[in-house]
Amino acid sequence: MRVLGVDPGLTRCGVGVVEGAPGRPLRMLGVGVVRTPADQDVPLRLLAVEQGLERWLDEYQPELVAIERVFAQHNVSTVMGTAQASAVAMLCATRRGIPVALHTPSEVKAAVTGSGRADKAQVTAMVTRLLRLAEPPKPADAADALALAICHIWRGSASDKIAAALARSTPPRSTPAKEYRP
Amino acid sequence: MRVLGVDPGLTRCGVGVVEGAPGRPLRMLGVGVVRTPADQDVPLRLLAVEQGLERWLDEYQPELVAIERVFAQHNVSTVMGTAQASAVAMLCATRRGIPVALHTPSEVKAAVTGSGRADKAQVTAMVTRLLRLAEPPKPADAADALALAICHIWRGSASDKIAAALARSTPPRSTPAKEYRP
Repeated sequence: MRVLGVDPGLTRCGVGVVEGAPGRPLRMLGVGVVRTPADQDVPLRLLAVEQGLERWLDEYQPELVAIERVFAQHNVSTVMGTAQASAVAMLCATRRGIPVALHTPSEVKAAVTGSGRADKAQVTAMVTRLLRLAEPPKPADAADALALAICHIWRGSASDKIAAALARSTPPRSTPAKEYRP
Repeated sequence: MRVLGVDPGLTRCGVGVVEGAPGRPLRMLGVGVVRTPADQDVPLRLLAVEQGLERWLDEYQPELVAIERVFAQHNVSTVMGTAQASAVAMLCATRRGIPVALHTPSEVKAAVTGSGRADKAQVTAMVTRLLRLAEPPKPADAADALALAICHIWRGSASDKIAAALARSTPPRSTPAKEYRP
């Protein structure tokens, strides 16, 4: 299966596309970072993240988008931007009917290094090895995005079928807004 | 000016449209709540919020969208959903070139009640009075959305011109994603 991994962020949103299946060699199709200028207003930055991710979805047509699960108790100064960028990633995928999977940082670390407490260098080293890359992907956000995709390919195969079925059968809906007119 | 106020939330996203200018009577054009089912996956809920907000933007064509500014240190259990719903609201407006203004809860309370520490009942009472409504808007999220719009109309007129000029002159952009192919 082809998975787009997204390490959400407003300043740097890591993206990486990996193709593979459990027990078979992995192949990297692309990796990069969608950046937005820190001096721009948040609404414009979110729009730029959306446009950047749309280009990745257009080009690579992934079957699933794996996004890092964001926790509120993490670094308070960046968590809002991370939560907002992850919302944009979820929206871009779901709008196209592409299933979304969320993985925690420790699930991702455990999947690629064997330890949920591995550091960034270890994750980057394993991603480089597993994908047989000539050099480590940079910056760390790009390596993390690839690690997310690998994590999903290895862990997610059973739950994917359920997610895909759900994405097909549950039409997105909102309760019609109750209106009150003067 | 016509302002859509948005009190962001995943379960209940309050929306209210108010028309007015500083020193002139205010007029409510519509108020409601976009709801999404708590048992649905977050990506689908975000899509439903987007679709709900798009309908409000289509119908009321506001000149500006005023959104409550979300702080990370608030209620940890709901802050992620609130941050994500606010990202969707910012995205919907910015995609249409509509300027976005963020106001803190205490700015909104101070604008409509005179006190930044007013409770919900006081905000609802003042919103009902200022808009000359026959009955208080319910639920509280709907009243808060109207309060946001009023707050913006009264506070934001100077800064709006700057925001509108910026929205016109700054094309949304992301740095082209650096790609690395194997």
